[in-house]
Amino acid sequence: MVESHTTLHDRIKTSFDKQAFLALIGAELERVEKGKVVVSCKHRNALTQQQGFLHGGVVSSLADVSCGYAALTTMPDNAEVLTVEFKINLIRPANADKLVASGEVVKSGRTLIIAESTVTDENGEKVIAKMLATMIVSPMK
Amino acid sequence: MVESHTTLHDRIKTSFDKQAFLALIGAELERVEKGKVVVSCKHRNALTQQQGFLHGGVVSSLADVSCGYAALTTMPDNAEVLTVEFKINLIRPANADKLVASGEVVKSGRTLIIAESTVTDENGEKVIAKMLATMIVSPMK
Amino acid sequence: MVESHTTLHDRIKTSFDKQAFLALIGAELERVEKGKVVVSCKHRNALTQQQGFLHGGVVSSLADVSCGYAALTTMPDNAEVLTVEFKINLIRPANADKLVASGEVVKSGRTLIIAESTVTDENGEKVIAKMLATMIVSPMK
Amino acid sequence: MVESHTTLHDRIKTSFDKQAFLALIGAELERVEKGKVVVSCKHRNALTQQQGFLHGGVVSSLADVSCGYAALTTMPDNAEVLTVEFKINLIRPANADKLVASGEVVKSGRTLIIAESTVTDENGEKVIAKMLATMIVSPMK
Repeated sequence: MVESHTTLHDRIKTSFDKQAFLALIGAELERVEKGKVVVSCKHRNALTQQQGFLHGGVVSSLADVSCGYAALTTMPDNAEVLTVEFKINLIRPANADKLVASGEVVKSGRTLIIAESTVTDENGEKVIAKMLATMIVSPMK
Repeated sequence: MVESHTTLHDRIKTSFDKQAFLALIGAELERVEKGKVVVSCKHRNALTQQQGFLHGGVVSSLADVSCGYAALTTMPDNAEVLTVEFKINLIRPANADKLVASGEVVKSGRTLIIAESTVTDENGEKVIAKMLATMIVSPMK
Repeated sequence: MVESHTTLHDRIKTSFDKQAFLALIGAELERVEKGKVVVSCKHRNALTQQQGFLHGGVVSSLADVSCGYAALTTMPDNAEVLTVEFKINLIRPANADKLVASGEVVKSGRTLIIAESTVTDENGEKVIAKMLATMIVSPMK
Repeated sequence: MVESHTTLHDRIKTSFDKQAFLALIGAELERVEKGKVVVSCKHRNALTQQQGFLHGGVVSSLADVSCGYAALTTMPDNAEVLTVEFKINLIRPANADKLVASGEVVKSGRTLIIAESTVTDENGEKVIAKMLATMIVSPMK
């Protein structure tokens, strides 16, 4: 039986809400579908670097989360995924009112999941960052 | 004339204190020398992921900051550096009481600076993450 | 005046033919358009690793070349680009008869160009590798 | 019983000699110890890019091989390792007479091995490239 979109969204949301750091940066879960997850984050002064733009650490956290949850949507219910590594290019200053990170699975294997994420401004017009990441499946204890 | 260690430390500290996001995650500047900067961050619940470990976004933010400031120590006073890209391997769960990120310049060029960072626990015994990063010099306006 | 496709192709081809290593691995220039370059390479025993698949070094060389030339198509006639760094995920065994690497520019700046490449089999059906790369403009002497 | 250095070297050499691509680029196995492997490659015209330097593809192939075999030295006799991904910074033009890539294991786990490599000229004085890579254990069929 195919997992319904609602169920899939709920599963990701449950995990998302357990991550205190995501609350700290104000990350929000925007969209969940199999192999694709969109998360966002609004500009706040507490998230900025010395020039007033959103910090690269915020941008990469958001992109990482979008990759991780995109990976998780391709896994069975009792699995968890961990980030093995990622590479991110910070392409433009993150001076948008809202960052939107769209994570997508490139290949979902038995052990590893390769995913990529594009971070844009609210309108999806400016590419702010690109990530290419490797996740590993970890059976939940 | 060689810049004194105190002056170098002050210059980095001044920039460090302007980054609101570093205050948010509780990052501290531990050590500054030419080509090397150490930053740290204590475990707090607000910084954790779903298993109670420090979030990968915190680990990578800290490593990025250590690379960026290591790069900045090799630049003239009126310069600024921006992260072009980085790649990080999250090697062990970040379940330490304190993360220590040691950034070091591999090559400082006229335009680009290559730096790497090792993130360990408080005792420097367990390698939690490794980063390899590219920074670009940006003359301060 | 917009550079014609023929001229652009010729410019890339001239540079391509100067790279002895590309001849050694049998790389071929398949398609050139502004911001996008496709190169390919046929399976030969001399290019294999211990299991008879095309070596990861061949896959990454090809992807790198596709990114570099994609970047070059966005530059003025008298410029050259060099690879600053790249990250590649080797996603599936390169057991195809022919590798096809499609490089595309993500952002072309004054100093840096960010590009990505997807390496597939001949039919474009199986993704064998993904690359995310940074190139730098270097004025030709 | 600890595996002798001779045995370890022989095991790596046997695999090395099966890789046709390594013969094509003239790669040589210089040193093998547990967790560390050094490989090299002499300058030849066939390996160059358009400026007469060794091609980035050669540099990254060599670094990848040094990481892969460093990883393999930490594995049991009947295992094989595959490159999941790597990131390389090409730091200086590869205009040396000989490239030397020293691969070292950062962390050897049950499934994944993290390794890094430094590529220098013959004297080890100039850092030409740095790699950070992820390998996966694959039981030999």
